[in-house]
Amino acid sequence: MDLTARIRSGEGGFVLFAITPPRRSTPVDRLPDIARVTIDRLSHRDLDGLVLYDIDDESTRNPSERPFPFSPTVDPSTYRADYLQGWTSPVIVYRAVGKYDREGLQTWIEQQNPATTLTVMVGAASSGARPAVSLADAQAMRADLNPGLLLGGVAIPERHSRREDEHLRLLAKQEAGCQFFVTQVVYDLNAAKNLVSDYRYECQERGLDPVPIVFTFSVCGSMKTLEFMRWLGVDVPRWIENDLRHATNPLTASLEQSATTAVEVMDYCRRLGVPFGLNVESVSIRREEIEASVQLAEQLVAHLNP
Amino acid sequence: MDLTARIRSGEGGFVLFAITPPRRSTPVDRLPDIARVTIDRLSHRDLDGLVLYDIDDESTRNPSERPFPFSPTVDPSTYRADYLQGWTSPVIVYRAVGKYDREGLQTWIEQQNPATTLTVMVGAASSGARPAVSLADAQAMRADLNPGLLLGGVAIPERHSRREDEHLRLLAKQEAGCQFFVTQVVYDLNAAKNLVSDYRYECQERGLDPVPIVFTFSVCGSMKTLEFMRWLGVDVPRWIENDLRHATNPLTASLEQSATTAVEVMDYCRRLGVPFGLNVESVSIRREEIEASVQLAEQLVAHLNP
Repeated sequence: MDLTARIRSGEGGFVLFAITPPRRSTPVDRLPDIARVTIDRLSHRDLDGLVLYDIDDESTRNPSERPFPFSPTVDPSTYRADYLQGWTSPVIVYRAVGKYDREGLQTWIEQQNPATTLTVMVGAASSGARPAVSLADAQAMRADLNPGLLLGGVAIPERHSRREDEHLRLLAKQEAGCQFFVTQVVYDLNAAKNLVSDYRYECQERGLDPVPIVFTFSVCGSMKTLEFMRWLGVDVPRWIENDLRHATNPLTASLEQSATTAVEVMDYCRRLGVPFGLNVESVSIRREEIEASVQLAEQLVAHLNP
Repeated sequence: MDLTARIRSGEGGFVLFAITPPRRSTPVDRLPDIARVTIDRLSHRDLDGLVLYDIDDESTRNPSERPFPFSPTVDPSTYRADYLQGWTSPVIVYRAVGKYDREGLQTWIEQQNPATTLTVMVGAASSGARPAVSLADAQAMRADLNPGLLLGGVAIPERHSRREDEHLRLLAKQEAGCQFFVTQVVYDLNAAKNLVSDYRYECQERGLDPVPIVFTFSVCGSMKTLEFMRWLGVDVPRWIENDLRHATNPLTASLEQSATTAVEVMDYCRRLGVPFGLNVESVSIRREEIEASVQLAEQLVAHLNP
């Protein structure tokens, strides 16, 4: 079964790889090469799909200075259409809905082929922002204009640690049409398990079937990457920071640690009967961190299909 | 190598089982039977030693109502001398030093045979208490009166989560003569790893060898046990609480989870080069929880000696 069929039937068991399109400042004549390198790197890895992030300037969300300067990226849908035609399995295209005007988003939704495209809609980063299109508007558009287009939402275990209501947010998104969820990068295993657990029992309470939750993992090979993850809101434990400061090969250590965390999350989801998927991204653009992320994805594929 | 030799040479790799002596209200003629059941249960399990807790009324430490009422227990040293002579490997006898007068504690320290007895000294539960003998006094007595008697201290990962200085407390205890540490029950893996990591790098900074840290694990088979662990200061994640409320066999789930956590702690300590031991206790006195704890100990022995 391919990715869309699995999600439609409420099943998990798939592995995705997530990339961020190149910066808009990249010379256009370099884009084909960048895309080719990505496809070469990710093909033949038995991945079930590709995730394309849509980066918004999140400086309204976090007053601290961004460790990597924000730089607008090529629109993920355009990038895919123009350069990623060689990618054959389904693609989950993120939409940071606050970036678009109503008409542009409507057109985009209408034009997508539900057999090969899925979308994750993300609301504005800060509740203070006043976007042209709210997340609720965008979800309603999808239901009206292209109800077959599979819709996902974001799930943030760290928010659950602080507010203890993320499972209720997921259920509200599910009512608005979400058929799967994708987490941000998971480093805090307990936070992830707490969210899965509360979600699972709330579904049971309401007589609903849980939908697949896609857990995102990454490696962290430098202090800069760690700082950036923290800026993005990921709770990175102190021991990982210490390892990074002192390890001769922090990347290897991080790869092992992420694989261990992923296996524990999988085991836990299986035990609770919550369908799950796995997503691997490289938070950093350093080559060795990207390659270690690909290795992580391969390990997870091997673990899922022994 | 036996337990004392291992600790003297700064090595870990041992498994202990911890018990609390019976309540003082137990009819004296029942004590031999209780001790015999314990020895029968724990013999032939390849355990490296027994831990005997010394329970103090900790109501000064925590204003919330104690889930199980406090009931004074038989003195661990007396209990051992009178009823546990059949136990052949070394015994770590806890001393809640605030409970004793100076002379009584001095005599006790002098009388111990360092080949078969180790001690963990615990300070008063609340800093508001004014005991006759402080932890520092008791540590100094050991150094003066019986310097060969192996001394341990308690390590509390949860305190590290809140104050971030538990590694410095460990090093202060090490200066006061501690040659090993024993944690309270570990459910929060990140807290344990954060403490190990900070301790390890602070040792390196000071040019000291890390001493064995003994991690304590337990199973949790009922809400009552869970409440009690929380009252004792153990951070028990919410997903474990949910599992307990809903699982058909929470004890099996808890056993698996504790074993997984223990293996991760071991792997992490190995990676950092911090010597470790393992300790299993049953927080509850329910028979099935005690038996599941013994199973956990057996699994850990098997894991350490494959």
